[in-house]
Amino acid sequence: MVETLPHKLRSDARSNRDRILEAARSLYAEHGLEVTMREVARRAGVGPATLYRRFPARQVLLDAVFADELHSCRSIVEEGCADPDPWRGFTSVIERISILNVGNQGFVDAFMSEHPRSDSFAEHRATLLSELAALARRAQADGRLRRDFVIDDLVLVLLAGRGLAATPSASSVAAARRFAALATDAFRAADTNGALPPGAAVAARMARKHPPAR
Amino acid sequence: MVETLPHKLRSDARSNRDRILEAARSLYAEHGLEVTMREVARRAGVGPATLYRRFPARQVLLDAVFADELHSCRSIVEEGCADPDPWRGFTSVIERISILNVGNQGFVDAFMSEHPRSDSFAEHRATLLSELAALARRAQADGRLRRDFVIDDLVLVLLAGRGLAATPSASSVAAARRFAALATDAFRAADTNGALPPGAAVAARMARKHPPAR
Repeated sequence: MVETLPHKLRSDARSNRDRILEAARSLYAEHGLEVTMREVARRAGVGPATLYRRFPARQVLLDAVFADELHSCRSIVEEGCADPDPWRGFTSVIERISILNVGNQGFVDAFMSEHPRSDSFAEHRATLLSELAALARRAQADGRLRRDFVIDDLVLVLLAGRGLAATPSASSVAAARRFAALATDAFRAADTNGALPPGAAVAARMARKHPPAR
Repeated sequence: MVETLPHKLRSDARSNRDRILEAARSLYAEHGLEVTMREVARRAGVGPATLYRRFPARQVLLDAVFADELHSCRSIVEEGCADPDPWRGFTSVIERISILNVGNQGFVDAFMSEHPRSDSFAEHRATLLSELAALARRAQADGRLRRDFVIDDLVLVLLAGRGLAATPSASSVAAARRFAALATDAFRAADTNGALPPGAAVAARMARKHPPAR
């Protein structure tokens, strides 16, 4: 017993941490970032003291909760950029991020909306948008991505994923796939493309340090 | 004075009602439907008693606040359906509803999400979707709208408008216009259209009583 007790304690502690993260992840996914620490503790089945011992501030919890999504997001962008076919890479990013987004409104809010309480995402956002803009320029050079595409258009589509989170969860992945396929057709270079009105500059503050795709 | 007093009272009452509606409209637009009656009263600068005398229940206030948006929504759909060119009518609906949506997340939530507290929208929703499905069938028959379009695709785009409400308000109308133009290109019949994955059936519950566009 003397030898197993510390192990058991570490195991309980880990289990509490995992339960808190799981509770916070599902609450943020369902309700966005307005969920309180008290609600997280209640859903996790731990006392407030345990919650604050593990995560002394809300921002620490947010960073931990969204670490996985951020990692997924970065992998998706890196794999898209590594694709020898830039158009295929570009469209795979749209589909995979749309699916990621539709399941987690909290992450999209935290990552895209310059939420004052999640500033730690700002640098990641600028880096990923810069990489995506470079990928977009290569897809345009290949003649597959429409010439009047700007990186703000991709931001619009990714923000739209936030709206799709309102679809019933049973069909949300199908909705995200279909939406991404429609977005792909919208972005495809084609004789039938309509004239786009001026860009919205929604990503201006996000991408300030980096040139847009054109 | 004896003659002007009743007029003044009526005028004050009307002014209170207008101020409450204006306060509720902007609060719902900014924060969605979770805004409390207390917050509405505070923003309007009236006491709770005055608020409840005018609007005895939250649903009464919601109906009054969104009456204008619902009227706008219906006008947009009716004018689109009346256009002798069904494709032009269809695309004008996308653009005009996108602009309406982007400025008012509360209305989109109330109208699209089957919110338990705003059931009075259910019938309007079914009627408008049915009219839009008929317009879509005519645009398909004309060969302008892609054959594999289903009415759920339009619902996806309208739900996406909810996500666009996160853009800074200074650029939100421009964002909505550009997004609608991209959606129009996505829906346009073209040799370059990709194969769409299966539909998401997001509107299944909404449009149950009415056949989809195909």
